[in-house]
Amino acid sequence: MASNQEEIKLFGMLASPFVSRVEIALKLKGIEYKYEEEKWGNLSETLFKYNPVYKKVPVLVHNDKPISESLVILEYIDETWKQNPILPSDAHKRALARFWSNFIDDKYMNALRKVLYTVDEKECKIYIEESEVALEFLENELKDKFFGGEDIGLVDITAVFIAFWLPIIEEVMGLKLLNIGKFPKLYKWSQDFNNHPIVKEKLPPRESLLAFYKARFAS
Amino acid sequence: MASNQEEIKLFGMLASPFVSRVEIALKLKGIEYKYEEEKWGNLSETLFKYNPVYKKVPVLVHNDKPISESLVILEYIDETWKQNPILPSDAHKRALARFWSNFIDDKYMNALRKVLYTVDEKECKIYIEESEVALEFLENELKDKFFGGEDIGLVDITAVFIAFWLPIIEEVMGLKLLNIGKFPKLYKWSQDFNNHPIVKEKLPPRESLLAFYKARFAS
Repeated sequence: MASNQEEIKLFGMLASPFVSRVEIALKLKGIEYKYEEEKWGNLSETLFKYNPVYKKVPVLVHNDKPISESLVILEYIDETWKQNPILPSDAHKRALARFWSNFIDDKYMNALRKVLYTVDEKECKIYIEESEVALEFLENELKDKFFGGEDIGLVDITAVFIAFWLPIIEEVMGLKLLNIGKFPKLYKWSQDFNNHPIVKEKLPPRESLLAFYKARFAS
Repeated sequence: MASNQEEIKLFGMLASPFVSRVEIALKLKGIEYKYEEEKWGNLSETLFKYNPVYKKVPVLVHNDKPISESLVILEYIDETWKQNPILPSDAHKRALARFWSNFIDDKYMNALRKVLYTVDEKECKIYIEESEVALEFLENELKDKFFGGEDIGLVDITAVFIAFWLPIIEEVMGLKLLNIGKFPKLYKWSQDFNNHPIVKEKLPPRESLLAFYKARFAS
């Protein structure tokens, strides 16, 4: 638990899966924090001050010291509060967890971003295939209930987008992206992850996200 | 020091700054390893087996367990062999070191890759400006002799490309990329880094790199 003298603030945005990663990790550790909601397209001066490089959420501010970039924040949280570890203790397993969480950002999230921002149908199909190649790697990597074993860990938390955001994007865009036939293990994982008591409590309301993405894709 | 029973192998390529990162880190730790040179455009079956996801160097194999991605390997090395730490011990400083080393890959290396692969002069100029914005951030971040303080650390090692590769690329392309007038601290850092006894011993021969890049840009 954080001591009384500690001040922990999270600058976030309801619709951001990157912020959701940090919220799940803090909840897993049992850490209380103050949450500041930033406005899409109209970020606060405070956020610019804390994250002048990327100018985006999430930013975790611990006793006035800001930390940006969700994966960097997750490592910080795991090193600062030791209870309920997010990373394995074995060095090689830690390396694999870092490898796969980076993979999700570099390969999967990037491919999906292209799916979302491409108007041309043919091009979009190519990016969907690219994102499916990435999912295939994750499907093969999933050996237990969670990527972290019986408990959720770094890779599971990083993959929150796949579990919770993806079905919403599917609904908005009328696409099937996490196909249960193609990725049965990943599909089951997504159900188990979303129903995990800690995760469930921290996920944003589905209807709000749906409204947000509907508005965004319409414009 | 690695014990006698340990088997440490590095799959690399002379011209790769990502491999150089791993070589410098292993040398800093005083770890002996077997080096396997991979061929540009004709990678070995062993490398494909060890890094089926990205199919590229570097791959560190420690007692038959492979680890890919240079920044993941650096963290593994630092966790496995504790002498001469690469990362600071303080959690917030560790987060900053990770932030800036990711920044070098995400912002600087990506911008520079675009400089190198763009034929159009106008477009090239835009990417050079983008790379200079990234260097400006690094210039402002450099407060001591090295990013790691008086000793080299994660950010210095990650930035080996800027110190050693960049002047070679400048020569091959006839461009000025690390301008001493614009980036005086970074320029001095690059000299200190290249002359660091550990670094100096592990950098590839300048003439070989020059020949490699000349041939590559000619084709």
